[in-house]
Formats: sequence, structure tokens, C-alpha cells
Amino acid sequence: MSNIPIISFVAFSNTGKTTFLEKLIPCLKAKGIRLAVLKHDAHEFQIDKEGKDSWRMTQAGADVTVITSATHAAIMENRPVDVNALLAKITDVDIIITEGYKDGTWPKIAMARAANGKPLPLDPADCAAVVTDLPGDYPCPVFALDEYEAVGCFIAENFVKNG
Amino acid sequence: MSNIPIISFVAFSNTGKTTFLEKLIPCLKAKGIRLAVLKHDAHEFQIDKEGKDSWRMTQAGADVTVITSATHAAIMENRPVDVNALLAKITDVDIIITEGYKDGTWPKIAMARAANGKPLPLDPADCAAVVTDLPGDYPCPVFALDEYEAVGCFIAENFVKNG
Repeated sequence: MSNIPIISFVAFSNTGKTTFLEKLIPCLKAKGIRLAVLKHDAHEFQIDKEGKDSWRMTQAGADVTVITSATHAAIMENRPVDVNALLAKITDVDIIITEGYKDGTWPKIAMARAANGKPLPLDPADCAAVVTDLPGDYPCPVFALDEYEAVGCFIAENFVKNG
Repeated sequence: MSNIPIISFVAFSNTGKTTFLEKLIPCLKAKGIRLAVLKHDAHEFQIDKEGKDSWRMTQAGADVTVITSATHAAIMENRPVDVNALLAKITDVDIIITEGYKDGTWPKIAMARAANGKPLPLDPADCAAVVTDLPGDYPCPVFALDEYEAVGCFIAENFVKNG
């Protein structure tokens, strides 16, 4: 296993997790932090484009299809891959943020939004922090739903090596 | 470096390399060989779909975006990645086939098609095999342009471990 720190954002659907991360990422990047985001897709996503050479290799039966250019690259695993095996392929970042993985063993930041009508998905005592507008007396740091910069600082200080 | 064997198919453009690989891959798969294909794209490919959550993470600045489902996964490196670093992320296959990388150090199978009006891209003395309809006296095994099965056997016997 690599020793890159991992933190999971967990919330019930429609809490606004993706939108929150979309605002959090630039805060982390502004601190010079290199980061990966790992997301589980319950749907059968198709990422490659029909008819492209790489798609043709996948259709022909390649277990793994890799495409690279001068500026970026993509590794497509055309078979089930265990999350730990995937994490091991993530290198040269300072932190990995997962969306979901409530039952994972990584430190968690739980989110809930009052207007969504759902509670925190976890006992806050089991969380590194919570991000919510639900009133309560929390046994861990609590942030408002628009406190991207503060959450970025919290992550940098507590989870990123030399952060 | 991993010790997965690598073989490169090299040819001038329009030789039919992708079409050949498309037919070769099922021959290798039928032998129970697990394989990866690595392709360099001279163009700036865009693999993710605009508006998708993963695309939003990439746009927000994630250096690496990973998406996984029950059946497959994709690791998008949103930054330049050295080919050796990419190869190191390919695991659990019996062989890696690259399209291109004429100047790489891996064994090569060179292709040429008379109708394409171009020669072999390399001296056949520097090749593991050639696939061509150009007449000649070759110092290495030579296969016709439709000998997918024979090339599959050649690769299995000469390059795949326990192949």
C-alpha cells in the first residue's frame, strides 16, 4: 500500500458533495497540494468514445487500455478492479480524496444539508469533521456548507504531509 | 519497473496497425492471455464527458481523477506522465502491447503495407518480426498482413511468460 493520505467525503445523495469538492479543490491547489479524487460510480459509466482507436482496443478485448499524450493520460481498466488496487496506482499526489466509501477505513468528513431532509450519514464521533448546516453539538470540528477555504486549511494541516 | 513483457507494433501511419491489433487481440485472449494496449495519441484527446462529475473534478483542478464501478475503472492523469510511470501502473496482465514507440527499447514488430507506399519503419534486423506484404529476404520471422493467429502464437511463445 502506498502511504498517501486518504480522506473520504461521505453524505447522502443530493447533499451537494460534488459541488462542495468542486469548490474545495481550488483551495487545496492554491496551497500547492497535488491531489487525486476517487469516485465510485454506481452506474455503468462509459468513458471512452465509440469509434476511437482506444475504444476499438477495449472492444477487441484488451483488459487494460492506456492512452497518453504530451499533456495527459488515461488508464482504462476494462474489468473489475478492487479499490485498493486502484489506490495503489495513484502516485505523485499529496492527498487522495474519495467521494463516498462510507464503510471504508479512511478518515471521513461527513456532510449533511438541512434542505435535503437527511441526517449525517455517520455518527460524528466517527468523523474527522462535519460540514453541515444542521444545528447540533458536535464532538469534532464543524464547518458551514460554504466554508471551502476553512475545510481546505483543515485538510492541509491535519492530513497532508508537510501540509 | 514491473517485469511484464512489452512488445511494440511500429509502422508508418495508414498501415493498418489499429485494425491489425483489433484482430490480434481476440487471438491472444483466446489463449487466456491478459493484455494491455498502450497507445500514444499525438492529438489532445479528451476522454471524459463534459458535465460528468468526474469531468467537474478534473476541471476544478484535480491532478488525478479516478472513477470506478462494479465492472470497470478509469484513472485519468490530468497532467503529463512519463511513459515508464504509466507502464508501472499496469498490473495483472501477461503482456503489454504498445502502438508506436519506435524509439523505445522494447522488442518491436514492424509493419508495412505495399499499398500504403511506405517501407518498414525500422531495419528488420532490429525487429522481433515483421508483418508485411512487401517482398524481401528478412532476417527475422515474417508474417502476412492477415496472419493474426500466427502472430498471436509468435507473441505467446516468445514473449508471454509461460505463454
